[in-house]
Amino acid sequence: MLDMSADEFRRAGHEVVDWIADYLAGIREYPVVSQVQPGELTGLIPPSAPEQGETIDDILADFRGIVIPGVTHWNHPRFHAYFSNSASGPGILGEMLTAALNVNGMVWKSCPAATELEQITLGWLREWLGLPEEFFGIIYDTASVSTMHAIAAARELVDPEARTRGSLPNLTVYTSSHAHSSVEKGAIAIGVGQDNVRKIPVDAGFCMIPAALAEAIEQDIAAGRKPCCIVPSVGTTSTSSIDPIPAIAGIAERSGAWLHVDASYGGPAAIVPELRHIFDGVGRAHSLVLNPHKWLFTPMDISAFYTRRPDILRRAFSLVPEFLRTAEDGSVVNYMDYGVPLGRRFRALKLWFVMRYFGRERIADLIRSHVAWAHELAEDIKSDERFELAAPVPLSLICFRYKGTDEQNRTLLDRINASGIAFLSHTVLNEKFVLRLAIGNIRTAETDLEHVWSFIQSLANDLDAPN
Amino acid sequence: MLDMSADEFRRAGHEVVDWIADYLAGIREYPVVSQVQPGELTGLIPPSAPEQGETIDDILADFRGIVIPGVTHWNHPRFHAYFSNSASGPGILGEMLTAALNVNGMVWKSCPAATELEQITLGWLREWLGLPEEFFGIIYDTASVSTMHAIAAARELVDPEARTRGSLPNLTVYTSSHAHSSVEKGAIAIGVGQDNVRKIPVDAGFCMIPAALAEAIEQDIAAGRKPCCIVPSVGTTSTSSIDPIPAIAGIAERSGAWLHVDASYGGPAAIVPELRHIFDGVGRAHSLVLNPHKWLFTPMDISAFYTRRPDILRRAFSLVPEFLRTAEDGSVVNYMDYGVPLGRRFRALKLWFVMRYFGRERIADLIRSHVAWAHELAEDIKSDERFELAAPVPLSLICFRYKGTDEQNRTLLDRINASGIAFLSHTVLNEKFVLRLAIGNIRTAETDLEHVWSFIQSLANDLDAPN
Repeated sequence: MLDMSADEFRRAGHEVVDWIADYLAGIREYPVVSQVQPGELTGLIPPSAPEQGETIDDILADFRGIVIPGVTHWNHPRFHAYFSNSASGPGILGEMLTAALNVNGMVWKSCPAATELEQITLGWLREWLGLPEEFFGIIYDTASVSTMHAIAAARELVDPEARTRGSLPNLTVYTSSHAHSSVEKGAIAIGVGQDNVRKIPVDAGFCMIPAALAEAIEQDIAAGRKPCCIVPSVGTTSTSSIDPIPAIAGIAERSGAWLHVDASYGGPAAIVPELRHIFDGVGRAHSLVLNPHKWLFTPMDISAFYTRRPDILRRAFSLVPEFLRTAEDGSVVNYMDYGVPLGRRFRALKLWFVMRYFGRERIADLIRSHVAWAHELAEDIKSDERFELAAPVPLSLICFRYKGTDEQNRTLLDRINASGIAFLSHTVLNEKFVLRLAIGNIRTAETDLEHVWSFIQSLANDLDAPN
Repeated sequence: MLDMSADEFRRAGHEVVDWIADYLAGIREYPVVSQVQPGELTGLIPPSAPEQGETIDDILADFRGIVIPGVTHWNHPRFHAYFSNSASGPGILGEMLTAALNVNGMVWKSCPAATELEQITLGWLREWLGLPEEFFGIIYDTASVSTMHAIAAARELVDPEARTRGSLPNLTVYTSSHAHSSVEKGAIAIGVGQDNVRKIPVDAGFCMIPAALAEAIEQDIAAGRKPCCIVPSVGTTSTSSIDPIPAIAGIAERSGAWLHVDASYGGPAAIVPELRHIFDGVGRAHSLVLNPHKWLFTPMDISAFYTRRPDILRRAFSLVPEFLRTAEDGSVVNYMDYGVPLGRRFRALKLWFVMRYFGRERIADLIRSHVAWAHELAEDIKSDERFELAAPVPLSLICFRYKGTDEQNRTLLDRINASGIAFLSHTVLNEKFVLRLAIGNIRTAETDLEHVWSFIQSLANDLDAPN
């Protein structure tokens, strides 16, 4: 046997499972943010790989002793930086099986189950979100890659010659000044160019101003440019603001541009009936992205992309070499036709596990709690006169600041993160340094938030009084 | 506890590990190719997700009863289609831990271990491959995505204005008529356009003809076009032919274009000292891709991309929004700066496990065996007068055909794959339908190949005599 024997795998696998169970159960004992210095881990590992194999026991010992101290624990219930995510139990079990099957679902034939389960789970999720039935679903690795594909499909829609002739530098992409950097990055990658990305101004609540969008489009058309793609957000990265999709959809329809909605973080909230309104107008979009690996309790990476125009997406990307032609080509979906990556892990499996294990009600309850806790914490922050909210709280992200200098807020953030007790990140709003506290991990309890907030309050006691 | 409890996870995790151990040990009992019809799996699964959660036992039972029959077993030692890959034991254990940690290594700070271990393992691999020390390594998901990044970096090199202004349709990309479709797809995505991809003719051994490349470049320059990227292969997809890199490197250097070597499948063979020559000239390339998830016994997905010009790659893609700025930005690698995807799973962990568990010698031995077995099988095929080799066998892929009609070869392939005994794929060479048999799975033994070959011979008995 050239590989590890079944017995050895079984023994080591049980040990790994036990470690994971203990790790997740004892996650609060770890500092949230890794305390290592740059290069510290590198200094502990030999500069060359071994000539002879080593035992799995030695490797697992180094994993625990060397790797773990360098890990920032995204599983920690007080990880509130960026957007929280979750390695839920059923999601991990699904990933274990995906790794073991190790199939490549590039065409239906290369693993029928991978293709069909991707269609099924994305259909289930579409129903939970109340999206139109004609929305075709595909899984990419990340929202950035999903959005890049949306912009490429948009180019195919408005300039179908581009695929053969190459891009012309006359296409324009529109997003808000608060959109995720992936819109700009996607436009750069695709060849649209950074200068052709219009960052439409936002209102006081950090939402895109439709009139400003309409004006920008008019100016571009007058200057001979071609509006290609409009990307509003349901949950921007800095503040989770929700752009007015219905008004934007109307403008998109009149302009002939592709409408792509970035709901990477915010999207799952539409599963909750009383929050469904965040998706008003989304059914009119050409495409939509949301990440089950953010707020849907599924381990990375899984980004769900929906489009009502799979024909255009396919026209942008299909390219079938002889060695990948199959007898079933006319009657099945071959996901390789819809994007750049050819290789495709069986990513739907973990989502299937998560959706079935929790069911819709429990997932809706979880998301509902996160939003409710965010509102409660926002109230607590408002009622401490040393602090202020820096943005509305439509979902589960709170932007706030100490009523002092940027320097004081930076110090406060550094002290929070150095403590190991919690991890927050920051942004800049109205030219002021602002703390971001995101709620979304499955293990976060209300007591964690009370702990974090009283800790922040205690740190504030050591700052100079606000100006 | 909102997630699965530690006890439940432990119990279900042990069950999953036991299933994986049994599955891999008993892999020969499964038909290689799934026997399901299109839509069969879909018909067995409810059209909607459950409202209430289900038990993990029910989910695992459906995984075994419904999903597994729809799986084509890439783990099967007689999976010889496309290119073989391997879910080795240590690789699966690494993936289990990656799923559990569920970190996003987008910046150093968000998980120092993920960034540093990626640098370390890719450094180790670089040494095994004899690549220059200045080659900077980064992991992408697939070779297609790696190659797309190479073409984007090439554009940044030859037309640095493109990033801001947008692409012009005057760039040209060169590859052989036998290159992987990802080169063309990457060029389409980036905005170069399909018409600007030159497919340079190949010689009798299916290798790019350098003189034809030089001529194509001259013609394009004379026509006012700008050579952007040249992509030779070390191991093409149809036949595993190896393009003459040293001659091509010379042409690339004179043209000023970026040289990207696609060694996705063939690359790992350079670990074997007596096969190292396949990398002659590769050190002169601007970039190189090889896939540890193909022939390096590591589960999907992990594509290793190396470049001597990380400065250019970074200039093409870096875009740092406020919320991702960190105090360490000057002194660490933040991998998000080097590509489209922002989210990054901890993919280096499984490669670290694989390289350590097997060590260099055992991995070299495995690859050496695969190449030797391919040569032995090629001799067997040559010595059966009913068959002929259709291409040289430089690595571990054999292209051969029954000396009959295309129809007969197609029938032969269909019967092989319908039998469940083996899975081969096909290509077209010199306008003839050809069978491809790839060797590369860690569980393949020489007896498997004997089994497959005698089975193919027995099927040939039932075909009409060759013309």
